[in-house]
Amino acid sequence: MVKTGYKYLDDINSPKDLRRLSVPELETLAAELRDFMVSELCVNPGHLASSLGAVELAIALHYVYDTPDDKVVWDVGHQAYAHKILTGRREQFHTNRKLGGISGFPRMEESPYDAFGAGHASVSISAALGMAQANKLQGIHRNVIAVIGDGAMTGGLAYEGLNNAGASNADMLVILNDNNMSISPNVGALKEYLLGITTSKHYNRLKNRVWNAMSGVPRMRRAIQNFGNVVKQSILKQSNLFESLNFRYFGPVDGHDLKSLVRVLGDMRSIPGPKLLHVVTKKGKGYKPAESNPPIWHAPGRFNPVTGELLVNPGDNQPDRYQDVFGYTLLELARLDERVVGVTPAMLTGSSMDILQREMPHRCFDVGIAEGHAVTFSAGLAAGGLIPFCNIYSSFMQRAYDHMIHDVAIQRLPVIFCLDRAGLVGEDGVTHHGVFDLAFMRSVPNMTIAAPANEAELKEMMYTALLSGVPFAIRYPRGRGIGADWSGGFRRMEIGRGITLRGGKDVAVLAIGTVTNDALKAAVQAEEEGISAEVVSLRFAKPLDTAILHDVGRRFRRIITVEDGTVEGGVGSAVAEFISANGYTAEVVRLGIPDTFIHHGTIAELKRICGYDTEGILTAIRKAAGREKA
Amino acid sequence: MVKTGYKYLDDINSPKDLRRLSVPELETLAAELRDFMVSELCVNPGHLASSLGAVELAIALHYVYDTPDDKVVWDVGHQAYAHKILTGRREQFHTNRKLGGISGFPRMEESPYDAFGAGHASVSISAALGMAQANKLQGIHRNVIAVIGDGAMTGGLAYEGLNNAGASNADMLVILNDNNMSISPNVGALKEYLLGITTSKHYNRLKNRVWNAMSGVPRMRRAIQNFGNVVKQSILKQSNLFESLNFRYFGPVDGHDLKSLVRVLGDMRSIPGPKLLHVVTKKGKGYKPAESNPPIWHAPGRFNPVTGELLVNPGDNQPDRYQDVFGYTLLELARLDERVVGVTPAMLTGSSMDILQREMPHRCFDVGIAEGHAVTFSAGLAAGGLIPFCNIYSSFMQRAYDHMIHDVAIQRLPVIFCLDRAGLVGEDGVTHHGVFDLAFMRSVPNMTIAAPANEAELKEMMYTALLSGVPFAIRYPRGRGIGADWSGGFRRMEIGRGITLRGGKDVAVLAIGTVTNDALKAAVQAEEEGISAEVVSLRFAKPLDTAILHDVGRRFRRIITVEDGTVEGGVGSAVAEFISANGYTAEVVRLGIPDTFIHHGTIAELKRICGYDTEGILTAIRKAAGREKA
Repeated sequence: MVKTGYKYLDDINSPKDLRRLSVPELETLAAELRDFMVSELCVNPGHLASSLGAVELAIALHYVYDTPDDKVVWDVGHQAYAHKILTGRREQFHTNRKLGGISGFPRMEESPYDAFGAGHASVSISAALGMAQANKLQGIHRNVIAVIGDGAMTGGLAYEGLNNAGASNADMLVILNDNNMSISPNVGALKEYLLGITTSKHYNRLKNRVWNAMSGVPRMRRAIQNFGNVVKQSILKQSNLFESLNFRYFGPVDGHDLKSLVRVLGDMRSIPGPKLLHVVTKKGKGYKPAESNPPIWHAPGRFNPVTGELLVNPGDNQPDRYQDVFGYTLLELARLDERVVGVTPAMLTGSSMDILQREMPHRCFDVGIAEGHAVTFSAGLAAGGLIPFCNIYSSFMQRAYDHMIHDVAIQRLPVIFCLDRAGLVGEDGVTHHGVFDLAFMRSVPNMTIAAPANEAELKEMMYTALLSGVPFAIRYPRGRGIGADWSGGFRRMEIGRGITLRGGKDVAVLAIGTVTNDALKAAVQAEEEGISAEVVSLRFAKPLDTAILHDVGRRFRRIITVEDGTVEGGVGSAVAEFISANGYTAEVVRLGIPDTFIHHGTIAELKRICGYDTEGILTAIRKAAGREKA
Repeated sequence: MVKTGYKYLDDINSPKDLRRLSVPELETLAAELRDFMVSELCVNPGHLASSLGAVELAIALHYVYDTPDDKVVWDVGHQAYAHKILTGRREQFHTNRKLGGISGFPRMEESPYDAFGAGHASVSISAALGMAQANKLQGIHRNVIAVIGDGAMTGGLAYEGLNNAGASNADMLVILNDNNMSISPNVGALKEYLLGITTSKHYNRLKNRVWNAMSGVPRMRRAIQNFGNVVKQSILKQSNLFESLNFRYFGPVDGHDLKSLVRVLGDMRSIPGPKLLHVVTKKGKGYKPAESNPPIWHAPGRFNPVTGELLVNPGDNQPDRYQDVFGYTLLELARLDERVVGVTPAMLTGSSMDILQREMPHRCFDVGIAEGHAVTFSAGLAAGGLIPFCNIYSSFMQRAYDHMIHDVAIQRLPVIFCLDRAGLVGEDGVTHHGVFDLAFMRSVPNMTIAAPANEAELKEMMYTALLSGVPFAIRYPRGRGIGADWSGGFRRMEIGRGITLRGGKDVAVLAIGTVTNDALKAAVQAEEEGISAEVVSLRFAKPLDTAILHDVGRRFRRIITVEDGTVEGGVGSAVAEFISANGYTAEVVRLGIPDTFIHHGTIAELKRICGYDTEGILTAIRKAAGREKA
C-alpha cells in the first residue's frame, strides 16, 4: 500500500530520525517526500501544491527545532503534508482525508506534533502567541513558531495577532511562507508590498549598505545626529511593515534552499522577542504541472503522476455543479442589472465567480482572505446603491457573523449572501463542513434565508434575491446537482413559500435544500412499504411557510424535518418552535447533523453516519409510522 | 429644554449654515459645541470624552466636504455627537439614547448625514471602500471619508479594509483620529508605532529633509541610482506602516487646530487614490475633568458640569454589579489556581478585569479591540496549559464566533468565556444588545453554556467552569444583581442541572439567567390570582436538564420559557425541540427578545416592550392558565 524503496524516507518515523541526517541528505529526502506525496495524492486526492511548496520548510523546522516540545503551528494546514509524513504518519498517509483516516489538516488529537488544529486561515499567530505567553508564565523555555502563508496574512486575525505579539515581547517566530498565492493568486496591498521586497534579491543587504553609506558621509551623519532616533527609526526600523508592528524582520530567504533555511532557523532560536522570517517559496515546487498552474493543483483530484493529466471521474461532465449555476447566473444577472456586482474573499475559482470576473472584471471584487471585510465592504457597496452578491463558504461565514448582523441586517441593506459549501463537505472535514449557517442566520431579524433543492431553484432564488431589496442568504452545497434544467428564463419565487412535492397521510417530511431529493426518494420507497409520507420542500428557512406548517400541524401527528445542517437550532428547531407555540401536538423528529463535530469522509458516508441520507430518512419515516423493523 | 443663547450654534441647523462661517468663527463654535455637549450630557448621560475630542474634526469635515453627498463614515460612533448636533439634531439631542429618541450612534435611518451605521469597531474603512467603489462604478464623483480611532485601528477588520483599499486605487480618505486611547488606554504594537510618530512633531518634514540631503550627496546619489526603486521605496514609501499598504500617508496634524484641519482637508480633496490623514486629538478635550481621566469620562453618567463631580444614583452602592462579582471572583480564582489568566479585548475597566490586572498584571492580557484574536489567543493559552477566562461583551462575541468554533470548541480547549452585557443593555441600543449569544452558542458541539440568576450563581459558575476542563460560556447582564450574598466560599455546581424554585400545577415557567427573578415575582403575583405556576431556573442552556424537562413535559400542558435573548433559536427553542421530539404535547410559549431589532431605551422600558418583564411574564402565565383578561 505504502510506497517504499526510498533511501532516507523509509526510515523516518519521527523527527528524531530526521535529525541524524546531513543537510545534503536532507536535500535528497526533500525529493523523496515530493515523490511520495505525488504518488499518494494522484490516487488519494488532497492539497498538493501548497504542501509541495513547504517540503523544505517542514524538514528544516523539524531538523532545527526540538519538536514536539518546541511548537510549530501551521496556519490553514493545506501545506502540512510533509510535516505529517515526517512525524510518524507516513504509513497512514494513504488514509488522508478518508473516513477514519488521518485529517488533511493538523489536528491536536491526531499527533503531539500537531501543536494546534487548523483549517481556517490566519489563526496561527494568535495561537502561537498564546502558547508563548503560557510558556513564559510557566517558566518553560521552548520555541513557538507560527507558519503562515501570504494569503492568510491578509486576514484581520493575523494582524490582530501581530499587533498584540509585537507589544508583548513574547519569544516567538512567525514564518511568512510567501508564495504570492492564496488558492488563486493573492490580492491586496500586502501582496504588492511583499512582491516589492522579494523582487529585489538583496533587500536587506541593500538597506544596510545604504545605512552604512549614510553613516560615512559627514553631512548625513550630522543630519542623523540632529534628527536622532526618529530618523533612524523611520529609515531602518520602520522601513518594514512588520517592524512597524515591533517584529524584527528577517529575510527574504529562499524557502527551497535547505542549507540556508537550516542556518537561518538555527540563528532564529537565539533571538529573543517577536520576530518574523520571510521565506519565499513556490507553490507546487518540484512537480512541473503544479508549478505551472498552482490554482488548479491546489487540490487537483486524481491525476496521472507522469503526465500531469487530471483524471476526470466518470459522469463528471453531467449534471452541472451548483457552482456553475451560481457563476453563470451571476453573470446573467449582472448583464441584466447594472447594479449587480460580485464579492468574494479569495474564492474566485472555487465559487465560480471567475465567470463574472472574466467578462466584467470591474464588477467583481476579490478582497483576499477577509470574510469580515467582504461582508462589510458589501454593505458599503449596497449603501452606495449597488446590489452585491457576496459569495462565502458556509463555514467561513462564521468569521463574518457580526458583520452580517451589524452592517447588513440592522441596516436592511440589500446584500445577497451566497453561501457555498453549505452542509457536509466531505473530505475537508470538521473545520470545513457548513453546519451552523441555518441556525446562526435564522436568529437574525431582517434576514431572508433560502436553500435550493436543485439547480433551477438556485437560479430562481438568486433572481428573487436581486428583486427583493433586502438582506438575503442562499445556501447551497458543494458539487453537482440532480440535473434539473436551469436553462430557462428567470422566474421569481414567492418569498417564504414552500411547496408540497407529494401528498401523504401517515407522516410529513419537511425538508430544506438538496436533501429534499433524498426525502422524496425515501417517501417513494416508503410507499412501496405501504407508508404514505407527505414531502414538503420548505425552500425558505426564514420566513417559514406558516400556511404549510399550520396545515401540516393540523393533519399529522408525526413530522420529520430534514436539513443538511445542525439539528440544534436549525430549521427543524424552527419547525418545532412553530408546532409547540401553536398548540399542535405533533412529534417533531429532526434529522440533520447531530450535536457533535463530524470529521472527514465522503459526503455519502458522513450523511449516512448522521442518519439523513435516503436510508436514514426512510428509517425515520418507518419509525414515525410505527413500522420500525426490529 | 434645549440650551440656547449661543452666538453661532443656535443658528446651525445643517452644515450649510456652518459653511457660512469664517475659521475664527468656527473656533468659537467649537467652544459652544463643547459647552452644549457638557450641559446636555451632565443630565442625559452619554459618551462624552470621545465626542469632546472630535469637535474640530466634525466641524472641519462638514465645513470642507459637501455632506451629505460626500460621505463621512464614523467608526464606532462614540465620537459623533458634534456631527449629530451640526446635522440638524441639536434640538433632539436631549432625547439622545432615550426611548424613541435619537441614537447614541450614527444610524442611516436617522439622517442622510449618517452615511453608515456604527456601534462596533473597525467597520468604517471597509464600508467607505464599498461606497467609493460604488461611486466609481456609477460614475459618481464624490468624496468618501472614514473616521477611525487608533483603538478601532487595532481591529483586524480595519486592516482587511486597508489591505483591500490600498490595492484598489479607490478615491477615499481615512482619517486616523489618534488619541492614544480606546475606552481605556490603547494597547499593542500599533499604539507604540503611532506614538513614535507623533512624539516627533515634524516627522514628515524630517523625512523629506533627510531625503533631500541624501540626494545632494554624490556618493548617496550613486548608491540610490544603483539600488533604484527598491531603496527609494524602502526609505521613503515604505517608511510608513500605511504606505506599506499603499496608502498615501499625511500627518500627523493637530486635530484641535481648526485652521490647519480645514486647510489640510481641503488639500485632501484633490489627491486621488487611497490616503490616510493622521490627526492627533485629545480625548475629553476642552473639559478639564474629562481630559485628566478619559476612561472614567468615556461614558461618565450624570455629573456636575461645574465641578466635574460624578453623580451617583441613589442606591448605586448596593447591591453589587455582576461586573464586581466577575472581577473579584476572577482574582480569587487566580490566587487559587496558578493556571488562571484573564483575557480582554480592550474592556479592562468595563468588565472589571482591572481588578485582576492591578494585582497580577502578568496574568491579565488586554489584547486591544480584537475579539477574534482574544478568543484564538485564549485557545493558544489553553493549549499551553493555562485556563483563560476570556471576557467579551455578548454582542462583540459575534465577532469571534468562528474562533470559538474552530479554535476552542473543536479542540475542546478549556477556555472560559465570560460574556458580559448579555441581553438587553439599554441606552447603547441596537448594536450593543446581547441578543444572539444563547442561540449561536448552543448550536456548537462541546460547549457548556450557563447563565446565572444572581450574583452567587455567577461566582459558582466561574468556579465550576474552572474545574470543568472544557469550553465553557457564562453569560450575564450589565449592571446590578439582586443582592444575593456571594461572600461565601466556592461551591461547585452540577453541570446541566437546573433547579425548581417553586412548585406549581397550572403552568411551568422555565427561565434562564437573571430573568428568573422576574419569573419568580410573576409566579408570586399569579398565585395571588389563584394561578399555580411552577418556576424552574434552568441555569444551563447546554446541556439542558433533561430530567426536569421530562418531568415538566409529563406534568404540564403549558410551558413558558423566559430568556434575556432572542426567541428565534434560543433556549426556549431548545425546550420546544425537546418537548416536540419526546412526544410531549405541551404548548411552549417563548418569551424573550422577539424577531426584530430592538433600539435604545432603558432596560426596563425595553423588557416591557419585548414582553418579558414581570408584567409580561404574568400576562403569559394568565393566558396559559386560561385566565387572560379581556
